[in-house]
Amino acid sequence: MIERLCVIGVGLIGGSLARALQAAGYCGEVVGCSRNPEHLQQAVDLGVIDRFETDIVTAVAGADMVLVAVPLGAMGSVFAAMHGQLAEGAVLTDAGSAKGSVIEAARNAFGGLPANFVPGHPIAGTEQSGVAASFPELYRDRRVILTPLQQTAPDATARVRAMWEATGAVVDEMSPEHHDAVLAATSHLPHVLAYTLVESLSRLGDSDEIFKYAAGGFRDFTRIASSDPVMWRDICLANGDAIRKVIERYIDDLQQLAAAVRDHDGERLEAAFAAAKQVRDRFVENNAGPE
Amino acid sequence: MIERLCVIGVGLIGGSLARALQAAGYCGEVVGCSRNPEHLQQAVDLGVIDRFETDIVTAVAGADMVLVAVPLGAMGSVFAAMHGQLAEGAVLTDAGSAKGSVIEAARNAFGGLPANFVPGHPIAGTEQSGVAASFPELYRDRRVILTPLQQTAPDATARVRAMWEATGAVVDEMSPEHHDAVLAATSHLPHVLAYTLVESLSRLGDSDEIFKYAAGGFRDFTRIASSDPVMWRDICLANGDAIRKVIERYIDDLQQLAAAVRDHDGERLEAAFAAAKQVRDRFVENNAGPE
Repeated sequence: MIERLCVIGVGLIGGSLARALQAAGYCGEVVGCSRNPEHLQQAVDLGVIDRFETDIVTAVAGADMVLVAVPLGAMGSVFAAMHGQLAEGAVLTDAGSAKGSVIEAARNAFGGLPANFVPGHPIAGTEQSGVAASFPELYRDRRVILTPLQQTAPDATARVRAMWEATGAVVDEMSPEHHDAVLAATSHLPHVLAYTLVESLSRLGDSDEIFKYAAGGFRDFTRIASSDPVMWRDICLANGDAIRKVIERYIDDLQQLAAAVRDHDGERLEAAFAAAKQVRDRFVENNAGPE
Repeated sequence: MIERLCVIGVGLIGGSLARALQAAGYCGEVVGCSRNPEHLQQAVDLGVIDRFETDIVTAVAGADMVLVAVPLGAMGSVFAAMHGQLAEGAVLTDAGSAKGSVIEAARNAFGGLPANFVPGHPIAGTEQSGVAASFPELYRDRRVILTPLQQTAPDATARVRAMWEATGAVVDEMSPEHHDAVLAATSHLPHVLAYTLVESLSRLGDSDEIFKYAAGGFRDFTRIASSDPVMWRDICLANGDAIRKVIERYIDDLQQLAAAVRDHDGERLEAAFAAAKQVRDRFVENNAGPE
């Protein structure tokens, strides 16, 4: 149980956690904090948070659990603002999509890594953002990855794990480096590919006509290109090394495919597509039921 | 009105046309034809076709409208088999995803382009295939592109247009070259990108683990990688020149994006992502209502 949860950044991610914990009866009071009082008032009106503060020091006072769910680029300043202000025994966690950069930001802000800081990342979300898009089932059956460090207190990790499990999520632990490599491949790369495709096509001669003939497959394929540009800018900056590595690998593979097209190598094309279909069909079967 | 429609290749595309025309009362009898009597019997059992033939000559006899909806690689042999066999005044059309190659196949098979041949392409489909996946609303509010040639009889084009309009589709006309360039950009490229991503990731160390942490965005992004590999092999072979051109352009754009990541150029990343989001949001608004 959490007596007072402080959510810093009350958007889709922070808002959905608050809703889920309230729905589970796992949480006493929820205090929201961000720089925008209008958004916070909206969160109160929607019943997502009980009250709000725009000052981080006041917001974290007396909270036994603090979730930082702000864009990656803002993590450092949020950590710096709460330095020395957390209640005794309070646990601090975050929801950043890249872990190495958040850990670095915490190290700098706190002058070392606090034992009560548990880096985390819920693998969930939609292309929507903002508290109005939040809903209590966002994390049900989704994965949450925690990347506790040597300095992290096992009890703090256990409390963050229990919190996410209360939302219906499945919690795993791994190293920050491994997290960042895996997410670069499965999430950051697809977003970069989708953004690049739409942007690339929009620069073609008559792009309105181009999009007129795009079908349902295109709509699904590019859905993630409707994601928040600032969030994805931050992810590309925060996890740049891993992302560049997967982009380069991908370009190599795409060049090989283009070569197969040039060589009219039907056998190779069919083998590549069939292998992809098999893997993708298995992924759907294993993960979220039939489509 | 069509008195007897002959559908060669009774899968998602041909089956859905038959269902739509029957639902609209636009069609007397539907005769199905393919090489596989089991599939054809299934189509009869599902009420998609009235009867079937496995021989093309018998199938087209007496039909006033013939739709060829077979993989692009099979178009040539189907055309050759029906050479000289169509009923007087019958109109022939196809549903191939690339038009230049189908027109070339027709020219070779018929020894020139018949006046009653209207190349066409319904821009609709799902990643499913087969007659069991067909449904009468597939073409509602979708685009169908016809690419009539100088040799094509205007009356034949008008009849094919009327047929597709009876399914609820919106029919446009353009040159085969323009069709192939537009479709390479909006459909063929996204499929190649999705197939390549899944195949690329599946060759990573522990691909089962990789996919375990893929979220909803990945599922949508890769949906088209569950499409029929043979169909997409054929499309890549049939529209290879246009596809290679868009792949090369895309690789250039992706390399520039990787450079922005390398240079920590947040401004450029945000501008690219914001432009893409704006275009994609407008596309959704213009095309198929809110998500």
